[in-house]
Amino acid sequence: MSTPGTLTTPGSAGEPRRAGTVLRVGIVGAGQLARMTHRAAIDLGIEVVVLATSADEPAVAAGATCRLGSPEVLEDLAALAAACDVVTFDHERIPTEHLEALERRGIAVRPAAQAALAAQDKLHARRLLGDELGLPVPAFAPVEDAAAVARFALRHGWPVVLKARRGGYDGRGVAMVHTPGEAEAVLATGGEWLAEACVPLDLEVAAMVARSPSGELVSYPVVETVQAAGMCRELRAPAAIPPALAEEAQALARLIAERLGATGILAVELFVSDGRLLVNELALRPHNSGHWTIEGAATSQFENHLRGVLDLPLGETTLRAPAVATVNVVGPRDGGDPRARLAAALAVPGAQVHLYGKAARPGRKLGHVTALAGTAGAAREIAQRAAGALGSPA
Amino acid sequence: MSTPGTLTTPGSAGEPRRAGTVLRVGIVGAGQLARMTHRAAIDLGIEVVVLATSADEPAVAAGATCRLGSPEVLEDLAALAAACDVVTFDHERIPTEHLEALERRGIAVRPAAQAALAAQDKLHARRLLGDELGLPVPAFAPVEDAAAVARFALRHGWPVVLKARRGGYDGRGVAMVHTPGEAEAVLATGGEWLAEACVPLDLEVAAMVARSPSGELVSYPVVETVQAAGMCRELRAPAAIPPALAEEAQALARLIAERLGATGILAVELFVSDGRLLVNELALRPHNSGHWTIEGAATSQFENHLRGVLDLPLGETTLRAPAVATVNVVGPRDGGDPRARLAAALAVPGAQVHLYGKAARPGRKLGHVTALAGTAGAAREIAQRAAGALGSPA
Repeated sequence: MSTPGTLTTPGSAGEPRRAGTVLRVGIVGAGQLARMTHRAAIDLGIEVVVLATSADEPAVAAGATCRLGSPEVLEDLAALAAACDVVTFDHERIPTEHLEALERRGIAVRPAAQAALAAQDKLHARRLLGDELGLPVPAFAPVEDAAAVARFALRHGWPVVLKARRGGYDGRGVAMVHTPGEAEAVLATGGEWLAEACVPLDLEVAAMVARSPSGELVSYPVVETVQAAGMCRELRAPAAIPPALAEEAQALARLIAERLGATGILAVELFVSDGRLLVNELALRPHNSGHWTIEGAATSQFENHLRGVLDLPLGETTLRAPAVATVNVVGPRDGGDPRARLAAALAVPGAQVHLYGKAARPGRKLGHVTALAGTAGAAREIAQRAAGALGSPA
Repeated sequence: MSTPGTLTTPGSAGEPRRAGTVLRVGIVGAGQLARMTHRAAIDLGIEVVVLATSADEPAVAAGATCRLGSPEVLEDLAALAAACDVVTFDHERIPTEHLEALERRGIAVRPAAQAALAAQDKLHARRLLGDELGLPVPAFAPVEDAAAVARFALRHGWPVVLKARRGGYDGRGVAMVHTPGEAEAVLATGGEWLAEACVPLDLEVAAMVARSPSGELVSYPVVETVQAAGMCRELRAPAAIPPALAEEAQALARLIAERLGATGILAVELFVSDGRLLVNELALRPHNSGHWTIEGAATSQFENHLRGVLDLPLGETTLRAPAVATVNVVGPRDGGDPRARLAAALAVPGAQVHLYGKAARPGRKLGHVTALAGTAGAAREIAQRAAGALGSPA
């Protein structure tokens, strides 16, 4: 069933199942992405088994089968894999060498270690996308010290965006610096960094595809992602960009998925800069930019991730309404818990409320609200109103 | 917040919650209805706790918090209630006196014992609907022996429908008899029975409402239910009946919900006989006739049941497409397991597959498939094709 360039695994997925057996998908990580994947798995009669570091993580609270352990301990990963047909993940903080070790043991790691690396290691991704594939990316360079950042700025100007090579998310591991002194302070926090040109932004979008080991591939409509302080705050589907630009973004995502041999979901975050696309980040898993698909698309990103990693036929990605808006629910500044305000949010007609079962902290992503409507403005208004009712700062 | 005639409970639902607390809904029963309610609860950050008789029941397999026990043991019910804000159920096989005993202890039983009785006891329901409310129902009479059935047939003709007063479902506890001899054989199986006139059927429909203890009430579009051997096999929303008849069905359901003080979902099964409505059965819980609402309505019956029993604002019930069809997946005659054929069903574009995690047996309800489309015919074709791919007999 495999095509050249894709992951070939000896697992049972994709082959006829024995009657009465339950498909089991192991997920390294038990956050809200695993939680919503578990919710999708219930529909299909699939069992999700998560590797969680504690029993109060969101996916465990929602009833996913739980194995306690660390993504940094190979034998914990192997024990998860032994209980499952395939192993996937909901974050990037797994040592690449561990994923490779699992593959050497014949375990179906999906996406494969080599593909996952493109999301784990930003320098690797930039070189692959920019240098090897020749795709448009912001100018970049690895930087070891403030002098290197200053040299980079000589060519590309200040400010410079510094990104941790590994481990950043939701604005962590990203800093905009305006002087060598600021750069030095960031680099002093340790780890490897790369410098990136600060490009003028018209807006940011994400192109999402799902792909199966057999090579089937489906594309979701391109979505606009509205960021604040490095965290995605709002999604607008479809993105209000020219059709040709949307098609180009989808083509870029397809090309990257094929090149990487991605399985399940691939999300490609893109800048629209002076009307042109630049590839920003990759995620080879369900992604915040796809939460709108739960109600807004014929098949959610979570279901298509399951279908993809199990090599099952992929589901349709068509929009279910002219406009879909998703607003993230972030912990209120007063420390209040959105769960205490659920009634107020449910009183907003048309609001689809999702809470992740996480302890409230100011600024923490605790849920999201989606609305389907006839116009983008109407959908946003509903979603924003319900998120506000939950205490999420505007 | 309560209105006259509704259940007043001392529970905490409907009042402001303490920050950080999780709403907990206890469900007596752990079948597919509890399973799909748990799935809906994940979205809202609500915890579902089921009273299950075994740990492999569908809701437990999907990760609902499980308490093992029997619905016939009062202390098992009380222990469930002690862990929850409210108690509801996914079947009718709970002794009414136990529900009343819970209420005397101050537990929020929703719907209330007196309301639930209308679904547990068919004779009670017929007297309430027909005699007290004067609603159109088929002619009926309690029957103690074959002679009483023969007397009933003298007035209403053969065949006569015999219904067990309590405990029937999916065609069990219902028999159509053509002679006193056949009636005697049915009555000899024990229990109390009532006779019902066999009315000419144009088609069968269901009207569903959700109601909260505060008295808020929403109506779903009327759906046609296609039965075979007493089991619902297919749903078609909206029902292809004149708008005036649909409005009358919705009005009947609202009236019954108000009279009973229903909370959460009330499903009213209706016969359309010679162009007129007759009330058949009631269910005061999520119901097979509402499975289409998961994808087909703005808020699913499961989410609105949770909202209703917790006295949270109810969600919109509007259709998400011009036509929605749901086809039940029944265990194949060859004993095969639909789970082994999942890939074939997922290959049908537009099919939304739901499997309940139950062991396969011929004729057993194991799942359902829903499709949204521009026309009723297109939706049915998709849902039937996917159900057929799962091995479900046509």
